[in-house]
Amino acid sequence: MFETAEHTETAFYEAFTEADLPRMMRTWDVEDDVVCIHPMGERLEGLRKIEDSWRLLFESGDRLQFLLSAWRTFSSPDVVVRCVQENISFYEEGRPRAAVVVATNVYRRRGSEWRMVLHHGSPVPVSQTRPATPIPDAVH
Amino acid sequence: MFETAEHTETAFYEAFTEADLPRMMRTWDVEDDVVCIHPMGERLEGLRKIEDSWRLLFESGDRLQFLLSAWRTFSSPDVVVRCVQENISFYEEGRPRAAVVVATNVYRRRGSEWRMVLHHGSPVPVSQTRPATPIPDAVH
Repeated sequence: MFETAEHTETAFYEAFTEADLPRMMRTWDVEDDVVCIHPMGERLEGLRKIEDSWRLLFESGDRLQFLLSAWRTFSSPDVVVRCVQENISFYEEGRPRAAVVVATNVYRRRGSEWRMVLHHGSPVPVSQTRPATPIPDAVH
Repeated sequence: MFETAEHTETAFYEAFTEADLPRMMRTWDVEDDVVCIHPMGERLEGLRKIEDSWRLLFESGDRLQFLLSAWRTFSSPDVVVRCVQENISFYEEGRPRAAVVVATNVYRRRGSEWRMVLHHGSPVPVSQTRPATPIPDAVH
């Protein structure tokens, strides 16, 4: 039960970190108007395509660690937009690597619960990124 | 005066097409929490940085034509999120070129007027794009 958009977002990034598909999909709305845009990807529409994309990503075996920073929020009683910078760490061929993704996450209220209806991530060339101010305990 | 988010969006893409900086900036909210992410760009915050980015783009002399398609909208009384596919035509060294950008546009109501508070555009490799169904008269 996600009582705020922030709770849903925390669960989303925890599921992403843990590559936990059922938990990931529980953060999404059950309506089929949901949209997901992975970095450099086309726009995926509907729960089936979105679930397939996460399955493929999680099955690839890549494990990502997120430090989230620089939130901007636009709120209304039914729709909340949260912009966040994803400071990502991962291993590639045994070497530690880093990447930055800017994400726009949109959450919709259904009764007393908030679910994700849109995730739009896009890459930022590392040369362009200013020093981030990560909040280490934002995602455990 | 933009009485709906759709009106604001139409004016935004008209200003973009015409490289009209004052008109572009009139589509943005006057609060300084606004955010703009150009394709492959870092997140720009605040009106000054956003205006500078449009000035730079418009002064480059590139002229883009937009056919918009595939809207998805998440609405509330105060915040409207509109996802749209930008099917872009332009000339590069005299040759016609095409590009596809997926955009998430967020509009906020101020009294009876709607203004843009977030524009997030990201490139889609053309090999990934399915046949679009452009609506030719969406932007004149």
